[in-house]
Amino acid sequence: MTGSTPLRVGMVGYGFMGAAHSHAWRTAGRFFDLPMSPQLTAVAGRNEEAVRAAAATMGWSSVETDWRALVDRDDIDLVDICSPGDTHAEIAIAALEAGKHVLCEKPLANSVQQAESMAAAAADAAARGVYAMCGFAYRRTPALSLAKRMVSDGRLGEIRQVRAQYLQDWLSDADAPLTWRLDKDASGSGALGDIGAHSIDAAQFVTGQRISGVSALLETFVRKRPVGGDRVGLGGHGETGDDAVRGPVTVDDAAIFSARFDGGPIGVFEATRYALGRKNAMRLEVNGSRGSVAFDFEESNILRFYDGTDDADASGFRRIIVTEPEHPYVGHWWPTGHGLGYEHNFTHQVVDLLTDIGAGVQPTPSFAEAAGVQRVLAAVEASAADHSRWVPVTASGTRGDTRQTGEEQ
Amino acid sequence: MTGSTPLRVGMVGYGFMGAAHSHAWRTAGRFFDLPMSPQLTAVAGRNEEAVRAAAATMGWSSVETDWRALVDRDDIDLVDICSPGDTHAEIAIAALEAGKHVLCEKPLANSVQQAESMAAAAADAAARGVYAMCGFAYRRTPALSLAKRMVSDGRLGEIRQVRAQYLQDWLSDADAPLTWRLDKDASGSGALGDIGAHSIDAAQFVTGQRISGVSALLETFVRKRPVGGDRVGLGGHGETGDDAVRGPVTVDDAAIFSARFDGGPIGVFEATRYALGRKNAMRLEVNGSRGSVAFDFEESNILRFYDGTDDADASGFRRIIVTEPEHPYVGHWWPTGHGLGYEHNFTHQVVDLLTDIGAGVQPTPSFAEAAGVQRVLAAVEASAADHSRWVPVTASGTRGDTRQTGEEQ
Amino acid sequence: MTGSTPLRVGMVGYGFMGAAHSHAWRTAGRFFDLPMSPQLTAVAGRNEEAVRAAAATMGWSSVETDWRALVDRDDIDLVDICSPGDTHAEIAIAALEAGKHVLCEKPLANSVQQAESMAAAAADAAARGVYAMCGFAYRRTPALSLAKRMVSDGRLGEIRQVRAQYLQDWLSDADAPLTWRLDKDASGSGALGDIGAHSIDAAQFVTGQRISGVSALLETFVRKRPVGGDRVGLGGHGETGDDAVRGPVTVDDAAIFSARFDGGPIGVFEATRYALGRKNAMRLEVNGSRGSVAFDFEESNILRFYDGTDDADASGFRRIIVTEPEHPYVGHWWPTGHGLGYEHNFTHQVVDLLTDIGAGVQPTPSFAEAAGVQRVLAAVEASAADHSRWVPVTASGTRGDTRQTGEEQ
Amino acid sequence: MTGSTPLRVGMVGYGFMGAAHSHAWRTAGRFFDLPMSPQLTAVAGRNEEAVRAAAATMGWSSVETDWRALVDRDDIDLVDICSPGDTHAEIAIAALEAGKHVLCEKPLANSVQQAESMAAAAADAAARGVYAMCGFAYRRTPALSLAKRMVSDGRLGEIRQVRAQYLQDWLSDADAPLTWRLDKDASGSGALGDIGAHSIDAAQFVTGQRISGVSALLETFVRKRPVGGDRVGLGGHGETGDDAVRGPVTVDDAAIFSARFDGGPIGVFEATRYALGRKNAMRLEVNGSRGSVAFDFEESNILRFYDGTDDADASGFRRIIVTEPEHPYVGHWWPTGHGLGYEHNFTHQVVDLLTDIGAGVQPTPSFAEAAGVQRVLAAVEASAADHSRWVPVTASGTRGDTRQTGEEQ
Repeated sequence: MTGSTPLRVGMVGYGFMGAAHSHAWRTAGRFFDLPMSPQLTAVAGRNEEAVRAAAATMGWSSVETDWRALVDRDDIDLVDICSPGDTHAEIAIAALEAGKHVLCEKPLANSVQQAESMAAAAADAAARGVYAMCGFAYRRTPALSLAKRMVSDGRLGEIRQVRAQYLQDWLSDADAPLTWRLDKDASGSGALGDIGAHSIDAAQFVTGQRISGVSALLETFVRKRPVGGDRVGLGGHGETGDDAVRGPVTVDDAAIFSARFDGGPIGVFEATRYALGRKNAMRLEVNGSRGSVAFDFEESNILRFYDGTDDADASGFRRIIVTEPEHPYVGHWWPTGHGLGYEHNFTHQVVDLLTDIGAGVQPTPSFAEAAGVQRVLAAVEASAADHSRWVPVTASGTRGDTRQTGEEQ
Repeated sequence: MTGSTPLRVGMVGYGFMGAAHSHAWRTAGRFFDLPMSPQLTAVAGRNEEAVRAAAATMGWSSVETDWRALVDRDDIDLVDICSPGDTHAEIAIAALEAGKHVLCEKPLANSVQQAESMAAAAADAAARGVYAMCGFAYRRTPALSLAKRMVSDGRLGEIRQVRAQYLQDWLSDADAPLTWRLDKDASGSGALGDIGAHSIDAAQFVTGQRISGVSALLETFVRKRPVGGDRVGLGGHGETGDDAVRGPVTVDDAAIFSARFDGGPIGVFEATRYALGRKNAMRLEVNGSRGSVAFDFEESNILRFYDGTDDADASGFRRIIVTEPEHPYVGHWWPTGHGLGYEHNFTHQVVDLLTDIGAGVQPTPSFAEAAGVQRVLAAVEASAADHSRWVPVTASGTRGDTRQTGEEQ
Repeated sequence: MTGSTPLRVGMVGYGFMGAAHSHAWRTAGRFFDLPMSPQLTAVAGRNEEAVRAAAATMGWSSVETDWRALVDRDDIDLVDICSPGDTHAEIAIAALEAGKHVLCEKPLANSVQQAESMAAAAADAAARGVYAMCGFAYRRTPALSLAKRMVSDGRLGEIRQVRAQYLQDWLSDADAPLTWRLDKDASGSGALGDIGAHSIDAAQFVTGQRISGVSALLETFVRKRPVGGDRVGLGGHGETGDDAVRGPVTVDDAAIFSARFDGGPIGVFEATRYALGRKNAMRLEVNGSRGSVAFDFEESNILRFYDGTDDADASGFRRIIVTEPEHPYVGHWWPTGHGLGYEHNFTHQVVDLLTDIGAGVQPTPSFAEAAGVQRVLAAVEASAADHSRWVPVTASGTRGDTRQTGEEQ
Repeated sequence: MTGSTPLRVGMVGYGFMGAAHSHAWRTAGRFFDLPMSPQLTAVAGRNEEAVRAAAATMGWSSVETDWRALVDRDDIDLVDICSPGDTHAEIAIAALEAGKHVLCEKPLANSVQQAESMAAAAADAAARGVYAMCGFAYRRTPALSLAKRMVSDGRLGEIRQVRAQYLQDWLSDADAPLTWRLDKDASGSGALGDIGAHSIDAAQFVTGQRISGVSALLETFVRKRPVGGDRVGLGGHGETGDDAVRGPVTVDDAAIFSARFDGGPIGVFEATRYALGRKNAMRLEVNGSRGSVAFDFEESNILRFYDGTDDADASGFRRIIVTEPEHPYVGHWWPTGHGLGYEHNFTHQVVDLLTDIGAGVQPTPSFAEAAGVQRVLAAVEASAADHSRWVPVTASGTRGDTRQTGEEQ
């Protein structure tokens, strides 16, 4: 039974991510037992008319037009940051200093420096019982959560290889508009940070290992696009712009890199928005000495599992429909075979976050762990800028980044 | 923008279907523009403690322990019936006579006689601007809705064949408990009415044609099961019972039938809860002279489409990921490639119902149309009881059943 | 090592099946150890020029223009019948009486009466060490052979349900020509006997059970077609005719039937040439109390296997790539993962036939067993002609039909 | 009709590749019209007893125990080299100098130097009407050949990305034996040259572009293995060795590299023998501005094609079953839907080779083109040896290497 203590949430931003987070705050307590009862107290955005409309649609009780006002309010217990990456550091640090818990969308920041400042602030706050978490929601897909459990339980044996692809095609059309997601100042990077970051987090999450070095290639196929995308909108997914004026694309369209993990495996990663026909193919395959798992978000309720110990005449990838009571999260929803959708991951994220806050333990991924993803992104960019030369991923000097990824789960 | 006029809902039953309906009532106005604003006013159930707990979890403002009290309340505009099939007729007719709109879960009733009484009551009510709809939610799966549109648009040409399977496996275990879904008095029939009814409705919906005759075979594989299932629970999906006492299974475990449609096609149908490994494989394939479509709910965001006019060297079933703005319903949710889950169909059902009520038109499927499904179920049982002899599906004498299925959409 | 004793083969007919059989006779000894060495001694056809060209292309040493001459030749040890079904009985009986082994393409005959005469002749011949086999080559697909072994080994438990589909689309075009396959006198029946017969044999083969009764529906969608197909050609697969003249289609275009097996399971069967987009989807799924298998010839190297005893969180249909040394037949071909094609089944058929002849045991399926398929076909037609009434499949009075299907393997 | 002029073939080696080539030589003229009639004249191997047995099984008329004797015979028109890579250069150059046409298995050689010597010899021979071809048989898979045609016809638009994987798992078991394929002296490299070479050739073939630079990572997971594999056998695919003695693995187990193509696209490649559960997943996906194609040899009869110009509500990857008369090669085999197997590619290779020799034109891939693949392999190794630094693929100085890959088809 969800607890009666309210948890008053203030959200910054109300675009695509804001809609997903709002749904999660409204829904989590209806299907899961939470230690606190989330309240959609306030949402902040710069355009008052737009933010009022969003609040009405999404169910927020009040609005602010300045995130600082939101952070300063006494009736806010948690700040949920859904604005573009260039705003994360300032908002998150202010909120933590004001004693608010923080949920911050990924990627954590647009630079390693920002990310490490955030991780430092989060470590300070945690010491005071105020917690920060980064929103890598794909971790909460039941199939990927099951994959992690299988690796942790040793059902794959020693991990040897990882292949991760995140394939979309919404920029294939050279006339798709220039939006904030194509502006390096706002977004930090292109396919790399937007979707490649998910692959990095998922690979580290599932294997329980950290990437120790990379060699990379970045490419921008279409260098000028029509101006007109909306900064706070869905980020250009299908919006049309004014094609009389074109502006420069300052981010990567596609990113490819090879990697080594600290426990021995090698990996290959690809993120692109130009794989025509692939709509949201966030794929991860892990091969071990005893078994393999494979996932594709285009079939998000399925995990493929190969058990190398099966009879030689009966072995093959199992198509597990991850909707059994024995599977992570799904027992709280519908009967076997009745699958979940994209937004359920955000609901699970709220569940995990509140469960940890209620128990007084650090939720994962912590800002320190998310800063680790940021260091991988930075290493990828450094390698790509230097003839694909191998670039080690430096360890953090930040307090609070001492645990293994695997141990955090 | 969702309208400010409230629509006050009273729900009867709070099991699996009640949870799905509650979510839909809470969510529809957050993603779609509705003419009225749904209020979760009251929920009714016989066990006061249990219904109070359900109301708290699902978000209902008040409770009743007798459905009659709910129907009599002045502050209820619509009665949503989620209780077992043997209760549908009495509740629905009372609610319509009390001037409440009605949403009634499928199958409409446990007999043709009940169904026709309900259809008659619905026709009377519709004349007064009070509407009734039956809850065949699978119609609202975007992929099946797209399939219907393709047929209506002539993209399949003349329809020749239908093959429909609804395969589950939750009774494969001979020790799964005896619940109300295995009791003919409560449920009307077994796999036939529970899941086969969905296939019948979907086949008629997508083709826009009605089944005119059937030949059938029913089978019960396990005739005694442990007593102990909960009448108001999830219907035995995974519950364990006391296996010291076994009671008789009085319904079919599997149903197979061939059919003819009034426009010429032939069809083959199968419903079973014993297809080990198939979790919720609600499948429909339609072949026409120009194209084909194929659907499987185990991949609910996908529609396979074969266009017979494609180049001879480039033709093949297209795997359409039904998440584009051009597809039914999905433009209101997430960007391309971010799929939906099972419960979205119920949200779409609320959207369609309220849109029609708001516009003062009959929502579909009407009780008359749902009574048509009931007549197919009855014909199947009659054929199975008489050596699979061909049984025509009799036309209704009921007022209000005069429109073609296809025209209703 | 293939034996040095020659086995001199005479083949009747040289169309699609003749090409497949010729390849098998040439190839079997190259990959498998055979007790005798097949010689392609003579091929018979009525058109001398055409049969000479075929002999040169396919590798036959001599030709005959009358099958009787072939049967009379002293230098023929085995007659391989690849001509249309209306010729089977006369040729096969003559060959057996002449002391030749016989391999006869399916369906065995165009009537039960013919089939039973053939079975009687085969029983007589077997007593003299002369053997007859019917060519249901799909049995020799490694995946289906593996499926049978799994059932026999008890890995599926008690069998409950069978669903068999054989879906093609080459008649979808209403202007495809009228060929012998659409003429009841030549072919016996349409989709039912041509492809449905394969499903019947495969279902009985894999389950090891016999169909005991059926209820059926047959349909002909296009009743007149352009004349011009070639009687000895590939049977109208893609040939174009003179569409100035149309003749009647006298066979079924699609057949649907439900069935009971003698050991308890129920089954549903469909055969059609109008499933637009399905090219050669010969599918078979068998559900037991412990496991399931599923096959589709469009992925002929794959068998799906669900093991109901797998861990609850790790169960799912296994995609077995049937190319391991532990699998039937395939160890004689290529390394793991290097799949086989359609014609390999015919090579396996030759291997099995010669192995049994060499060992002096009856090859399977015997004519008696194939006559059993013919009785199912006849029951299907009888049911369809009588309002889908249930029709038992009568036991044979023929000598030599006393063994269970399952025991014969 | 296959011509009556004999083409007398002498084959060196009789392992896995020898069996595949022998089948092709026996079969090509049975299904295709060839300008000459292949004769299996002689096969060479060092072990007389073994080579005699192989000759009998595979259908060769005579044997030699020294390849030089074979090359010197007057009754040999074409030498087919199926021995390990370290022997290719010497045999091929001697055969060409002796006026024999040459078919040489891939990879062309174990070093760029050898490959370029071979290309030079081939260019000299071609001037005299004696032709050499390298055996990249995967090109002849109808689905990949169709993919190339689609790219050439502009149906994909401008090519932007390539992703190629060749995934096997036969070394996953750390106790699999040490064979010649794991010995750098014999095989040149490991997964890279054995299977990665196929991916390189296929990617260049389909796109019609050449790889201009790479960045690479190589890894060897298991560094010592049991001695006992047979040098002339199937190369360790499943053979068991004496595990009392272990020897060093001197080749890569897995290779990952990113690439640029000369026309603009970027690509990512992976070859591994450790992807547990992947049996022969030779995959290639190409994304263009207008369409995409995707192939996986585990479904070798299928090509996935996405046409970006399809209606927005009906676009999706088409599952083309590449068995239509309109598709490359397959019209010579079976009716629609009756798929081919692995060895058919070798038959197609013989067809293409003899067709070109008969027409007096250079068959493709020429030795010069195959030397280009060798230069990519060398660049991959150089990059991996130097911290994944970007390594350009040097243009050849060899005569005869002047044509574009795309133009050669």
